[in-house]
Amino acid sequence: MCASSPSFPSATTKAELEEGSRLMPRFGPDGLITCIATEADTGELLMVAHMNEEALAMTLKTREAWYWSRSRNELWHKGATSGQVQHVIEMRIDCDQDALWIKVRVSGDGGCCHTGRKSCFYRSVAPDGVLIEED
Amino acid sequence: MCASSPSFPSATTKAELEEGSRLMPRFGPDGLITCIATEADTGELLMVAHMNEEALAMTLKTREAWYWSRSRNELWHKGATSGQVQHVIEMRIDCDQDALWIKVRVSGDGGCCHTGRKSCFYRSVAPDGVLIEED
Repeated sequence: MCASSPSFPSATTKAELEEGSRLMPRFGPDGLITCIATEADTGELLMVAHMNEEALAMTLKTREAWYWSRSRNELWHKGATSGQVQHVIEMRIDCDQDALWIKVRVSGDGGCCHTGRKSCFYRSVAPDGVLIEED
Repeated sequence: MCASSPSFPSATTKAELEEGSRLMPRFGPDGLITCIATEADTGELLMVAHMNEEALAMTLKTREAWYWSRSRNELWHKGATSGQVQHVIEMRIDCDQDALWIKVRVSGDGGCCHTGRKSCFYRSVAPDGVLIEED
């Protein structure tokens, strides 16, 4: 990690983590934190992705979603090529600060999934494991 | 892993994973898959947790949410002690089958978070990292 890498404070107590008023994100052993994106106006679940420290810092700074692409192993400004930029209306963090939730408005065609669908969650799972495409 | 451990098929092609009609969940190196739970009637985001193969199999079988507790390192039938059982109304999987989404109705007091709040996402994050408790 380079010297100019962003860094966030670490919690020393559970109370600080759960009841504190300071962002102290807990990145996993892989340096990543899970982030959920929902459509700010409709609440629709769009995608689940991951951020490293730099992606989170860039998201806070620019108010656009930046992720860490695990498949390409690189920082990923969502929408930079597709036009589907995610403008962050609100960010939330969960109780133990190991998951983020961003409410976004999406530029371009408003979509999110690389398959061309709006949301990545386009299939329901039946109890027997059969997947059914939903609207 | 014991001989009777549940197992799910693995995709051999991207098309099978993204366009197929068979659940082929991709567990991470830690054997876990991320699962998001939302309230089925309101769409409210309740929590993010993780499932291993057994937890996913139990969730499909019982239609109640089972997770893998990373802090306790054990299978976790959500609500078994608190009464906050999550009844699964619908399960969805994302494009590359590495994240699950369950829409649930919650027994007991309808809550979810161990801090006593309904949702784990009770704090918003300001750009400067200040957390603010929201309704």
